Amino acid sequence: MFGHQLESLKEEVPRRIEALRSLMSENQIEAALILQRVDLYYFTASAQEGALYIDKNQELFFIKKYAPRAREESPLEVIEIPSLKEIPSLLPQKPKLLGLELDVVPAELFFELKQIFPQVEFKNISPLILKLRMVKSQCEIELIKEAAQIASFALDKVPHILREGMSELELAGELLRLIMPKGHQEYIRMRGFNREAHSWHVISGKSGTILSHIDAPMGGFGPSPAYPMGASLKPIGKNEVVLVDLSTCFWGYHSDQTRCFSIGKLPEPLKRGYEVCRKIANVLAKDARPGASAQWFYKRAKSIAEQEGFGDYFLGPKPYQTKFVGHGIGLEISELPFLALGHDYSIQEGMIVSIEPKMVFPDLGAVGIENTYLVSSEGLVPLTSAQEDLIEV
Amino acid sequence: MFGHQLESLKEEVPRRIEALRSLMSENQIEAALILQRVDLYYFTASAQEGALYIDKNQELFFIKKYAPRAREESPLEVIEIPSLKEIPSLLPQKPKLLGLELDVVPAELFFELKQIFPQVEFKNISPLILKLRMVKSQCEIELIKEAAQIASFALDKVPHILREGMSELELAGELLRLIMPKGHQEYIRMRGFNREAHSWHVISGKSGTILSHIDAPMGGFGPSPAYPMGASLKPIGKNEVVLVDLSTCFWGYHSDQTRCFSIGKLPEPLKRGYEVCRKIANVLAKDARPGASAQWFYKRAKSIAEQEGFGDYFLGPKPYQTKFVGHGIGLEISELPFLALGHDYSIQEGMIVSIEPKMVFPDLGAVGIENTYLVSSEGLVPLTSAQEDLIEV
Repeated sequence: MFGHQLESLKEEVPRRIEALRSLMSENQIEAALILQRVDLYYFTASAQEGALYIDKNQELFFIKKYAPRAREESPLEVIEIPSLKEIPSLLPQKPKLLGLELDVVPAELFFELKQIFPQVEFKNISPLILKLRMVKSQCEIELIKEAAQIASFALDKVPHILREGMSELELAGELLRLIMPKGHQEYIRMRGFNREAHSWHVISGKSGTILSHIDAPMGGFGPSPAYPMGASLKPIGKNEVVLVDLSTCFWGYHSDQTRCFSIGKLPEPLKRGYEVCRKIANVLAKDARPGASAQWFYKRAKSIAEQEGFGDYFLGPKPYQTKFVGHGIGLEISELPFLALGHDYSIQEGMIVSIEPKMVFPDLGAVGIENTYLVSSEGLVPLTSAQEDLIEV
Repeated sequence: MFGHQLESLKEEVPRRIEALRSLMSENQIEAALILQRVDLYYFTASAQEGALYIDKNQELFFIKKYAPRAREESPLEVIEIPSLKEIPSLLPQKPKLLGLELDVVPAELFFELKQIFPQVEFKNISPLILKLRMVKSQCEIELIKEAAQIASFALDKVPHILREGMSELELAGELLRLIMPKGHQEYIRMRGFNREAHSWHVISGKSGTILSHIDAPMGGFGPSPAYPMGASLKPIGKNEVVLVDLSTCFWGYHSDQTRCFSIGKLPEPLKRGYEVCRKIANVLAKDARPGASAQWFYKRAKSIAEQEGFGDYFLGPKPYQTKFVGHGIGLEISELPFLALGHDYSIQEGMIVSIEPKMVFPDLGAVGIENTYLVSSEGLVPLTSAQEDLIEV
């Protein structure tokens, strides 16, 4: 069922585990127990339910369910266990210090692990894992390229689908129909408590002026107050902006891309705002080089927006303007590096980032553009490719 | 934008808070801080980012983001805060014992809360919240009915969409296109760590024999090892079963429904297995009354399956057979009551449950049926309504 991609991921596994082992050693973390599905997939090539134990001498891959599939997928030897409680008795040596993903492991499970590993000190291992995941391998780049192609394919179809009076959710449904048969995973992963994400970010007209609980320039009404983000039942009208921020996922790897459309002519401020966003994205992509500070992206973007007279609308309505213009992307829809104020580490070759300059005009709506790029020595290479002109259907 | 449904939910808010307050008092929980989005929506009618503090004298609704929307949605007064750290200074009296949702709050956030509330003892409040959410109000029943109608509408269309050679993901995409414009939320909520759920559970032929990490009779290949559940790129062939387990969500409230189809004739064991599943569902729905033990459903279902000679295939392939035949459903796709072995509490009027007898035949595939029912004094009343005959297209 699963061909060459699985073979490439399998090959990566020993390298990834070895890289984590080095980081653990540098940070005096004796052993780690990895439990989150996404991280497990990264280190084992399987997303079944279990735990990966790593110390300096060995890695032990425990599976609660479903072992036959984990055996088929992972190059690691699978040890089937009925419960995490079994783990200590299966370790050759019990650690004194154990790394856990404390940013995502729930408190109750943490208490349970404290009982399973008495007298053990726990430390958060997630920062090391996320640091490692930040730089992508060739095989990861290929998977994100594929996700990006799926998104580009769908965005190029929007002008043919868009119809006055259709609801945002209807357009979202049409896009899902296009991308599912390409292998789109649909379940978009976002790390952390209360974090939810989706593919169907279709926002039209004044929907673009509604914010959400997430730190983003715009939210959208969403289908209801229960899920107050993304596409809603609002009908799409004439002469209003239709912003489609399409997240796709292939083999667990995400891509993020935004384009704007309208039925009929768009109000002039939105049109000009869109062109400034496009200019910002192009300048950043052309000028960025490995070694650039993550916050340079935000500062440069903001200064262009201000020069062009759009500072008040950039990255959200006042006083809710966000302080980031982009984010890393991979097994989670937003991950390190964050191209944001206060993030002063450097970007490196092999990272993949989305850059998304956006503007919100109160009463009018939101415009913006987004592409997903590979960081190369020559600047940022776009992986997303839908045509960038603002399309007035 | 949001009409009568929001008004009904707003009216519920004081009643729900009062009911939790009673349960807290019975269980010696002095105060509670509710943080999870789903629970916040239940108690405030808004799913913005914040916290609801409840003690015996007052409730305080703190919002980090996005306050304008929370103010529009909730009948509670909204107190805008930049960070959870502000909360203690805003409380008239600091509690000694504080309830938190420890099953879902991550360990790191728990440590932060321990610093914010020094010298406070914490207790898990989730069991009380989940107990409360188990019995539905009239307005919740109406929302689940609507979700059920959306699913029924789509399942009745399957015979017209199904085509030899289309992939499971393609059929899934067609269903999404049908249900999104009806207000389907698409983001299906499942409580707990590593729990992921989706609408698009389309499983054909031998896909039905593949299990997943979740405790369910069948999993499906999924789009890749990264998301090993649900629809895959496998083409749908002739004379094999196509099982569609469709989860829908309206205003945050879920419905769950399963139907089976085939292109051409289905192998005899699958056909008979399906009829036994249908019989089990009908017997349970007819015989159940408020007061029945949750595990009665499982035991009765299993005994019918065995009488009919299908015990070996019931609820999964050996040795992975599950021990439940249904689950409560509401703001999360599976919640109390669990119609499962070992659950000996009683079901009550006003609960909503999905009953899903399923069978897995190694080498052939999986069949089954599922409906969502309201527990009434006369037995279970189905809210899902797609026609139940096995359809050979």
